[in-house]
Amino acid sequence: MKIILLSGGSGKRLWPLSNNSRSKQFLRVLTTPDGGKESMIQRVARQIREAGLTDEIVVATGANQLDAIGIQLGKDTAVVTEPERRDTFPAIALACSYLRSQGTSPDEPVIVMPCDSYTENTYFSTIGLMAKAVSEGVADLVLMGVRPTYPSAKYGYIVPAATPVDGEPTPVSRFTEKPEVAEAERLIAEGALWNGGVFAFRLGYLNEISDRYMPQASFETLRANYGKLPKISFDYEVVEKADSVAVIPYAGDWRDLGTWNTLTDELSDLTHGNVITDACTSTYVINELEIPVVCIGAKDFVVAASPDGILVSERKLSENLKHLVGDLGKRPMYEERRWGQYKVIDMVEFPDGYCALTKQLTINAGCALSYQRHNCRDEVWTIINGEGELVLDGERRTVSRGDVITITRGQMHTLRATTPLTFIEVQQGTNLVEEDIERFPFDW
Amino acid sequence: MKIILLSGGSGKRLWPLSNNSRSKQFLRVLTTPDGGKESMIQRVARQIREAGLTDEIVVATGANQLDAIGIQLGKDTAVVTEPERRDTFPAIALACSYLRSQGTSPDEPVIVMPCDSYTENTYFSTIGLMAKAVSEGVADLVLMGVRPTYPSAKYGYIVPAATPVDGEPTPVSRFTEKPEVAEAERLIAEGALWNGGVFAFRLGYLNEISDRYMPQASFETLRANYGKLPKISFDYEVVEKADSVAVIPYAGDWRDLGTWNTLTDELSDLTHGNVITDACTSTYVINELEIPVVCIGAKDFVVAASPDGILVSERKLSENLKHLVGDLGKRPMYEERRWGQYKVIDMVEFPDGYCALTKQLTINAGCALSYQRHNCRDEVWTIINGEGELVLDGERRTVSRGDVITITRGQMHTLRATTPLTFIEVQQGTNLVEEDIERFPFDW
Repeated sequence: MKIILLSGGSGKRLWPLSNNSRSKQFLRVLTTPDGGKESMIQRVARQIREAGLTDEIVVATGANQLDAIGIQLGKDTAVVTEPERRDTFPAIALACSYLRSQGTSPDEPVIVMPCDSYTENTYFSTIGLMAKAVSEGVADLVLMGVRPTYPSAKYGYIVPAATPVDGEPTPVSRFTEKPEVAEAERLIAEGALWNGGVFAFRLGYLNEISDRYMPQASFETLRANYGKLPKISFDYEVVEKADSVAVIPYAGDWRDLGTWNTLTDELSDLTHGNVITDACTSTYVINELEIPVVCIGAKDFVVAASPDGILVSERKLSENLKHLVGDLGKRPMYEERRWGQYKVIDMVEFPDGYCALTKQLTINAGCALSYQRHNCRDEVWTIINGEGELVLDGERRTVSRGDVITITRGQMHTLRATTPLTFIEVQQGTNLVEEDIERFPFDW
Repeated sequence: MKIILLSGGSGKRLWPLSNNSRSKQFLRVLTTPDGGKESMIQRVARQIREAGLTDEIVVATGANQLDAIGIQLGKDTAVVTEPERRDTFPAIALACSYLRSQGTSPDEPVIVMPCDSYTENTYFSTIGLMAKAVSEGVADLVLMGVRPTYPSAKYGYIVPAATPVDGEPTPVSRFTEKPEVAEAERLIAEGALWNGGVFAFRLGYLNEISDRYMPQASFETLRANYGKLPKISFDYEVVEKADSVAVIPYAGDWRDLGTWNTLTDELSDLTHGNVITDACTSTYVINELEIPVVCIGAKDFVVAASPDGILVSERKLSENLKHLVGDLGKRPMYEERRWGQYKVIDMVEFPDGYCALTKQLTINAGCALSYQRHNCRDEVWTIINGEGELVLDGERRTVSRGDVITITRGQMHTLRATTPLTFIEVQQGTNLVEEDIERFPFDW
């Protein structure tokens, strides 16, 4: 079997720890069985591995998550990036096209699942049963049905044709999307299950559906013409149109840690970082800044500080964030990249529109920036730790603490760290956008 | 009459807006009659001026407040700095010695008062009456007695010998320091008043007391031997020992805005800076950082963010701060200086003890840094705005946007701004302390 992990998501609901480049599934805030820290996506990948389901995971995501996935799941993880953001059907179709291009049999069961559900191990044995049901031809499409614990109006409901038994496939009668609470109560009495967003099917089944849009297109062709695929969800395009659908119930823990309120329930420590609390109750304070956070007399709050901003929220009201931070995250102020990490430590715009942006960057030992140039900004780098090799307009030299490198617009440059290398970068110009970068191959 | 304003105070109770260099009385958070902003010390100076009491104010303070007083009260303000921190008696004795050295008559009435009481105009007319009572020889020492509004256990009480009448001097019978509440109730029934910390006396009266420690010492001698004066408060050394003490009651508004809880009562706006609030009640959010603060669902809170740190506190509990921030303020992260201002934007210490500190500095047009050198650190300056004149080891040149200046340890340097000049400074070395600076005269 193959697993397609859907890794999407904006950085809004767990702002300021998440941002446009660091979505919630990449926050290393959960505790591993051995006491370490892991992110939601790392937890799901670990659970898949521990359940012995498969070693073959394909992550379907956007280009801005490529670095984060490589860092968290390993550089060799297969990642299929959408050339542009559309919806779940085209994203899954593209990943399935990739699997076909890799020679996967059309009869191979494929599981599509979210990368951020917080579940227990029986979730993964249920997934194993779903793949088995597909292999045995029980239905074209097998869904996971999560046993409802309350009549939620937030979820989609799967209504089975007969009373469902845990671990066994039952034919599906119909779907109901986000019903009113009273209707949800009636559905649950009928044996309805929540749609957990986990789907199983034969690879060929999905390839055939996408072939209707672009007959027998290769992966490269499909990717090049991605914009021609309809902007539609997998639920609407595939699930609701399928003739033969079965559901297997899952009765265990199933949570979305996508808001501060739900995430903090799973945190093992009340504070993280440079924090002092006094007279606080059920209050979580997470500080990724160097400066201290002092929190006094808060009850049921979450306080989070990062280079992107500062959140102070009553826990239950933290869902409001989604509507509030829409325009805040103009650019990420902290990013983990394949070569290391950076944070923006200062940003200033002068009355004439001229801007300066100062970063602290660390390149991991053995890693290098891309060979690049900027057309609208000059940069000054001051090395404050470590040693490395600089290439500036083709000339190589070693650099270390105290060295100052001035890079004017148009100059080609790259830097490779021999030991962990930290430097302060001052960018300046009239138009400081992240997109002002051209990358070129470089042979070290 | 002369007025000695006592400007002391640590930066703890209004942290993180106040710090070791920016005490609470310098925070420009109050609203002036014409809608502008002023600090507590500016408000008191304005009220003295508007009451027509005197133009001759001497500020008694520590050396670290010299720049702030010059900026806020004007460069020509007389400031007497303690060579070391002792207590109120030596500080007042030094200021009185200064007045004698300036030729002030021993019969001149002197008022000593705090610089951070939040009061109304009748407070200043009461001060006028106190000076008049001293001139008329009513008593050696005339105190202001604030009409108590509740039986506080925090204040000192002045017990008059007869029922006191507002605006009229009454002989003092005795003093009681911070009584229990029940005792305070009895004292108030007896006509006792709070000790407002405002004292009036003939200049010669106090000069005579300090002469007992150092007979007829000049101001310079007294200052040079400041450590020989006893570490004792004015209340213990002068007030409690005086033979002839009178009190004049003041019945108006009298508040100490020294905690976030009391200060926020006087703020005209709930938010300041880059702030978004949602579903908050009676919550004040003051953000001096560039990054946004989002505050959701807080009731009766104060949130304050500055380069020194972040405070989230239930308003009534904000007094706890004093005990919590003791060791936080290792160095100020933001300072207003006579030449402009700076903020620390990054601080990092590497495992081998090597440190780097990055600042954003702005020099006001026409102002200059002192001519200085450092012995333990190198600096790299990147000019990001404005124009100025640099002197590096005696060589002058003009600098502007994009210029990079490297200053190695031991190099003499100064910078004068022709227009407002902003630059990023990266300091590095094994021992980055503020004290690593030697200043020399420079003739521009």
